[in-house]
Amino acid sequence: MVATLFAQRMEYIKASEIRELLKITERPEVISFAGGLPAPELFPIRTLAELASRLIIDEGKKALQYSATEGYTPLREKISSRMKKVFHANAAVDEIMITSGSQQALDFIGKVLINPGDEVFMESPSYLGAINAFRAYEPKFVEVETDSCGMIPEALEEALKSAKHPKFIYVVPDFQNPTGRTWSVKRRKALVELAGKYGIIVVEDNPYGELRYEGEMVPAIKALDTEGWVVYLGTFSKTLCPGMRIGWVAANRHLIEKLVLVKQGADLHTSTISQMQINLFIETEDFDAHVQRLRQVYRKRRDAITRAMGRYFPEDSRYNYPEGGLFTWVELPAGIDAAQLLKEALKRDVAFVPGAPFFPCAPRKNTMRLNFSNMPENRIEQGIMRLADTMVSLQ
Amino acid sequence: MVATLFAQRMEYIKASEIRELLKITERPEVISFAGGLPAPELFPIRTLAELASRLIIDEGKKALQYSATEGYTPLREKISSRMKKVFHANAAVDEIMITSGSQQALDFIGKVLINPGDEVFMESPSYLGAINAFRAYEPKFVEVETDSCGMIPEALEEALKSAKHPKFIYVVPDFQNPTGRTWSVKRRKALVELAGKYGIIVVEDNPYGELRYEGEMVPAIKALDTEGWVVYLGTFSKTLCPGMRIGWVAANRHLIEKLVLVKQGADLHTSTISQMQINLFIETEDFDAHVQRLRQVYRKRRDAITRAMGRYFPEDSRYNYPEGGLFTWVELPAGIDAAQLLKEALKRDVAFVPGAPFFPCAPRKNTMRLNFSNMPENRIEQGIMRLADTMVSLQ
Repeated sequence: MVATLFAQRMEYIKASEIRELLKITERPEVISFAGGLPAPELFPIRTLAELASRLIIDEGKKALQYSATEGYTPLREKISSRMKKVFHANAAVDEIMITSGSQQALDFIGKVLINPGDEVFMESPSYLGAINAFRAYEPKFVEVETDSCGMIPEALEEALKSAKHPKFIYVVPDFQNPTGRTWSVKRRKALVELAGKYGIIVVEDNPYGELRYEGEMVPAIKALDTEGWVVYLGTFSKTLCPGMRIGWVAANRHLIEKLVLVKQGADLHTSTISQMQINLFIETEDFDAHVQRLRQVYRKRRDAITRAMGRYFPEDSRYNYPEGGLFTWVELPAGIDAAQLLKEALKRDVAFVPGAPFFPCAPRKNTMRLNFSNMPENRIEQGIMRLADTMVSLQ
Repeated sequence: MVATLFAQRMEYIKASEIRELLKITERPEVISFAGGLPAPELFPIRTLAELASRLIIDEGKKALQYSATEGYTPLREKISSRMKKVFHANAAVDEIMITSGSQQALDFIGKVLINPGDEVFMESPSYLGAINAFRAYEPKFVEVETDSCGMIPEALEEALKSAKHPKFIYVVPDFQNPTGRTWSVKRRKALVELAGKYGIIVVEDNPYGELRYEGEMVPAIKALDTEGWVVYLGTFSKTLCPGMRIGWVAANRHLIEKLVLVKQGADLHTSTISQMQINLFIETEDFDAHVQRLRQVYRKRRDAITRAMGRYFPEDSRYNYPEGGLFTWVELPAGIDAAQLLKEALKRDVAFVPGAPFFPCAPRKNTMRLNFSNMPENRIEQGIMRLADTMVSLQ
């Protein structure tokens, strides 16, 4: 087999060197800020075991069978209610499709919307998984100037005006991956206004929104949208567990109809049993109390990492203080290449993800993403100390 | 939102009228030959319930967490062994990637290989789900003359010679969906020879191969391939249960590497817990004995449908006698349109799928697909009687 057998689009879908580098570091002695894994000790193991068994005994013939592409209706109903309750966002049951993780929703959105060369507007930086999903459909990424409150509306409008084939705006407004930043309400309103003015779809990806550790809940961008421009992506990967791969997309009916057609061709439907199991969990357990437990644990870890960074990091590095989510973001002095730093850090048994690949167009090599959800506080502090030592050694 | 917002490829991904028609018929009084559902009374409910609970208790932290894109290694090992044991096909563990049902493998193969306009060679008729999956990547379908033993090699060679951008040959050689036909060994060998001669990939889709009710097992096309041209797709949907969505693709390492990259962008990985559960089932249960039970029940249903068709169908209709799988195929007299017949049949509370959409290029309206796996024998006989009445009423 030779490379010319592959489709053109495979030119844009490349193996990541960083990913390969990090694979070698799954040794237990490595303190890893690299992944985006929720804490497995917070999975409700006993409850899920009991529910799994009960579900199969009581409804196995249905739970193990093929099911509808749109998803399991009782679960879609619960998602609709929760979006309303937590984020004030309106989505009717038939405006919701279940996906195999919200990563799949990103792929389908690319498939339904992107023609080669279409402009996709992204925050600077943005979620790497979205960049990778969209890349398969050969868009032109437009990186919009972004500060700690979100995309700068003037910069976005400028970009929209000069676009040739504007397709959609992709944002992660709550505790963004990779930066941990959250958009202000003002910026959310400005975005919705621009969407209406220019007639452009906004894709709001919100995997972390429920994980707020301080400050007040902010309404989803979808909650501010009266014209149906906002497509909302959610997931149970961070609030319950990622191993079942249950996410969803909420959008206007025209778009959902297309997404359903694409899903029929792509995998028929998402795991019936996993959908029914999560539905049963929400039905029989106190989901709010469960999320509250996650918040308590993650808050302490967020505190531990920001405290340790404040204490040990060199003064010329800057870091973000996230109000929620799983990540913080570090800007190193301009001369330092985080990929180089990673190689040195691995020698000291500490890992992270360099920030450059998160920039769709203009990589900034002196940045890095740190995850804090997957380790106890003492490991976090120790890891930050090691990382600080590495930073100093490079200066 | 207006239609021009959608990508060009959505022109080829349309809602199916038949699908909509059949949706209305989920009333219990309808005898349906329409779906492709395995018999839910054969799901090993008690065992799976017990294993699910045990798995989550013992390995929940792993089973509910993110996992590798390639799939769960112990399951890949078992698939490798079973492919060897049952179909004499060689695939090393790192030549196997787990997918969310084998439908997902079809989508990924399209994504990795097809440029718009590339020729994809299909049997006449072929699997509708494959046609739909590939269509998103805008190939040119070439329908190769096919008889009861498989594609006719001379016709295939002619088609390959006159192709401009030949990409791959897609076949379902065992108890094909929709016809129930099985390729002879001679035809399999001829296909592999042509693949080598013309340097073209063969995609062998084998969801039904284990469900043989009579005759001798035939080696997989992959088993005859020494040069690595054959990509093999398998699934647990028909041998265990479809609701977990666990399938796989086995191919040479170059192609697997690309498929893994595409899967990273498309859904990160397949459900960890479902993979581990199926792995545990194979580890602790007698999978051969389980498949043997399926064969016994389905054989009786195959016998019931062929017997009833022989007894009640008008003499000018022809039907296939399948040695395995879930389907048989009927050719009606040339003047009868099966879509019209379906409308009449639904009035008599009996359903099936018209054959036309299974032809990638040249639909033959006087054909239909009948499924026999999802009903007891007496319902099958009654349904065939009703269908025969409908056929007579149209003549």
